[in-house]
Amino acid sequence: MLIELNRESPLPLYAQIVTQMREMIRRGVLKAGDRLPANRELAKKLGVNRNTITAAYEELTAEGIIRSHVGQGTFVNDVPILGAIREERVATFPMSWNAVLTDQSRESSFSNFMNIQSQKDTISLSHGLPQSELFPLEDFRLSLNRAFRKEGQTLLQLGLSGGYQPLQKHLAAQMALLGIQVTPDEVLITNGCQQSLDLISRILVRPGDEVVIENPTFPGAISVFCGANSKFLSVPVNQRGIDLDVLEDILTQRRPKLIYTVPTFQNPTGTAMDIGARRQLIELAARHRVPIIEDDIYRELRYDGADVLPLKALDKYGLVIYISSFSKVGFPGLRVGWMVAPRPLIEHLNALKQRSDVHASMLSQAAIYEFARQGLLNKHVRRAKKIYAERRDVMLEALEKYFPAEAEWNKPEGGMTIWIRLPESLNASQILLEAAKQGVIFSPGERFYASQPQCHLMRLSFTMTDAAQIELAVKRLGAIIKTQLSRWKTHRGILIAEGRRALM
Amino acid sequence: MLIELNRESPLPLYAQIVTQMREMIRRGVLKAGDRLPANRELAKKLGVNRNTITAAYEELTAEGIIRSHVGQGTFVNDVPILGAIREERVATFPMSWNAVLTDQSRESSFSNFMNIQSQKDTISLSHGLPQSELFPLEDFRLSLNRAFRKEGQTLLQLGLSGGYQPLQKHLAAQMALLGIQVTPDEVLITNGCQQSLDLISRILVRPGDEVVIENPTFPGAISVFCGANSKFLSVPVNQRGIDLDVLEDILTQRRPKLIYTVPTFQNPTGTAMDIGARRQLIELAARHRVPIIEDDIYRELRYDGADVLPLKALDKYGLVIYISSFSKVGFPGLRVGWMVAPRPLIEHLNALKQRSDVHASMLSQAAIYEFARQGLLNKHVRRAKKIYAERRDVMLEALEKYFPAEAEWNKPEGGMTIWIRLPESLNASQILLEAAKQGVIFSPGERFYASQPQCHLMRLSFTMTDAAQIELAVKRLGAIIKTQLSRWKTHRGILIAEGRRALM
Repeated sequence: MLIELNRESPLPLYAQIVTQMREMIRRGVLKAGDRLPANRELAKKLGVNRNTITAAYEELTAEGIIRSHVGQGTFVNDVPILGAIREERVATFPMSWNAVLTDQSRESSFSNFMNIQSQKDTISLSHGLPQSELFPLEDFRLSLNRAFRKEGQTLLQLGLSGGYQPLQKHLAAQMALLGIQVTPDEVLITNGCQQSLDLISRILVRPGDEVVIENPTFPGAISVFCGANSKFLSVPVNQRGIDLDVLEDILTQRRPKLIYTVPTFQNPTGTAMDIGARRQLIELAARHRVPIIEDDIYRELRYDGADVLPLKALDKYGLVIYISSFSKVGFPGLRVGWMVAPRPLIEHLNALKQRSDVHASMLSQAAIYEFARQGLLNKHVRRAKKIYAERRDVMLEALEKYFPAEAEWNKPEGGMTIWIRLPESLNASQILLEAAKQGVIFSPGERFYASQPQCHLMRLSFTMTDAAQIELAVKRLGAIIKTQLSRWKTHRGILIAEGRRALM
Repeated sequence: MLIELNRESPLPLYAQIVTQMREMIRRGVLKAGDRLPANRELAKKLGVNRNTITAAYEELTAEGIIRSHVGQGTFVNDVPILGAIREERVATFPMSWNAVLTDQSRESSFSNFMNIQSQKDTISLSHGLPQSELFPLEDFRLSLNRAFRKEGQTLLQLGLSGGYQPLQKHLAAQMALLGIQVTPDEVLITNGCQQSLDLISRILVRPGDEVVIENPTFPGAISVFCGANSKFLSVPVNQRGIDLDVLEDILTQRRPKLIYTVPTFQNPTGTAMDIGARRQLIELAARHRVPIIEDDIYRELRYDGADVLPLKALDKYGLVIYISSFSKVGFPGLRVGWMVAPRPLIEHLNALKQRSDVHASMLSQAAIYEFARQGLLNKHVRRAKKIYAERRDVMLEALEKYFPAEAEWNKPEGGMTIWIRLPESLNASQILLEAAKQGVIFSPGERFYASQPQCHLMRLSFTMTDAAQIELAVKRLGAIIKTQLSRWKTHRGILIAEGRRALM
């Protein structure tokens, strides 16, 4: 009987014997009725303690695979083919989970969206992410090493929930440059804007509460507030940003728990609120005592025009929670972001962060701190911005050239995407299906709406591919759209003609 | 008028002018009634566009700090000292947050516990953490670099929620060695056991639900279930682990949502359940259809005795959710752990992980994978285990030598701590106060209880200090305890004597 034991394995010897014997029985090497070696004999043969064999035999007996008769020996039982045992176990006694899940129905469409692994030969205009090929790998690796050499021992040990303190200090200084006066302990380091939103939602939103969001908006935010079982009060976005008149009505009629807004290069519309609109928004929120979550993640990706102060800098009332991260200017995979919250909230946010996952990766925090401290982040951002600005221009020209006259789009001063409005007769998701066959994918506008989804809008990202690919992709999209449009016109023409005939 | 502009700053020029003028007014350099330069003049002087000055003046006007009179000029207003403006703003119009927080009362005592920065000259026996001085920094740094050189571009880009796939594969193989047969996609990478617990709680526990926990148990788990507003069904821990008789009663009388257990080197009691007890636990849970969360974080820190299969390996019913991490054998600061959950839960956990913080740091995951793949983690664990085993023995000998006969303690086969039971007349928190003055801290047992806290127990960690410090610390503690005990005996003696006199 061939049993091989691996003494280096963390699996106990008796368990290795059990596994191998089970396998031998499954494969028919040992058959029903076969007699197994006596305890003492097998122990000697394998060079193990008799207790090990006893334990193995007890296990197999408990599983009903073998049986012992005193004075007679140990025999293989007549049992169903053991190859099926794992499946059989699950099939016979499965735990049923439906009744115990708090929410079995909610499947995040956000998840499909986030998978950025596109197929070969597909040009993806889907993701508002920085382009990996532009990452300054060597610069970052050196920063990583510098950080590790300085304090590797501290970075690998458990840290504080607030974050890696030098990074908090650095960010507090950065915030001051934006007119936001805070002390380092008011800067909570999170795993990114997604987590910032999740934490804020957990301390402010109860099931059934209402939250105000721009419509359309960032799907990750929709996902968080859905998960919180809140109700959406959706406010349209116009040239100036969130529609302040609609917002005023809503705030007068309802008692929402918060307002989520992306005032600078809104995702997906690309609008940037001017200073007057920002002040109005704050005054409105202050009058109705509603907190604002300001998502400022795209701030640094400005290509034209002048910076505008963040809401937080204009917040005389202590009602703005400011969130941002390194994911658009830098490195999304690191998962490092931050939150600047009014002091009464900090204790609660810290406690929640701690019981959620203790703290953000010390290594990631220290690496990005070292990288930023040396000016390498600014250097990288400047370079990336030049390239993204060029690509934006290429896309805009291509749209002019290849898209039908009936399509409209914005000309954003920054950000990563263009927001295109097609005639209402067209459906962006259907266009996507056709486009995917032709090797181009993008984000249909539908997925950015929490309510009253509009199906004739598209979001095209210009950051992740080069100019030639952008041109090619827009050319293909333009052709598909023109085809679909002309089909519709023809179809409509036919309907009109039939209608006329019916009237006659 | 001295205004210095920094053209490299991300803060817009007009905002820099506003900030500096405000400061000058605050400091009295500009006084109420002073006339400010005309737009054209200041623009020329500072070398900026006139629009910039206009924007700055508009801002200051909006803030009520200056006023313009056509034909007359621009003047500083008579306003309260601006140095107080930020405080004033908060004082006059503060947003009141009490009514909007979902839970303003809960402050996590867990937070105080986690701060491991002890004072100088204090010997800390408080934390069940690996000792930083033992971290193999150079080995790890090389692994980190190897991982980064191989795929830095991928690691810095957004990843998948399930985790870094090579790490999932590696862990699936490790799980197989423990008798847990899973495919890599059934291994969800989290930010550590804390996050694993938080995620599980969010998908299984609604406010008001009941959860079964060992009492005493890991404070981080108490914190998670408190945060979920659940009710605790506490089960005592005996020599065999969770008290199965009490558990059986509870499962018959109530409908808890889950059982949280640490079967191997339970925190804080140090017990390890034998195979028979584990089987019984599973059968009990299966009979009542209650999921089990198995926290196996201390598994590898076994110094004596034989490994016992995890509950998950014995789970024929698909009801065990297995969690573990690299935080005890390796590096807590990295925040990398994993969860092996039954297939019906994986989709929900993945979706929740994604909307919580998208994924764990790719860099941390890849680094620990590379480190483990090369056998360096095993090498480190073997070395650390030898050292911890010696320290455990030193602590046990010191307890024999210095603690009073009335104290009892376990002799754990593994883990990081010793659990000491003092006579009920003593209070561990009071002992801690005295001990801290003498430069020794530890964890009073009280904080490990979700209900019916016992105040006469202490948990001493032996991993974070060397043998000499352990001996010294135990010696000091022993003296303090003996003193307190003898005071109590004297006091009791006095009371008894008085009692007798009263009776006569």
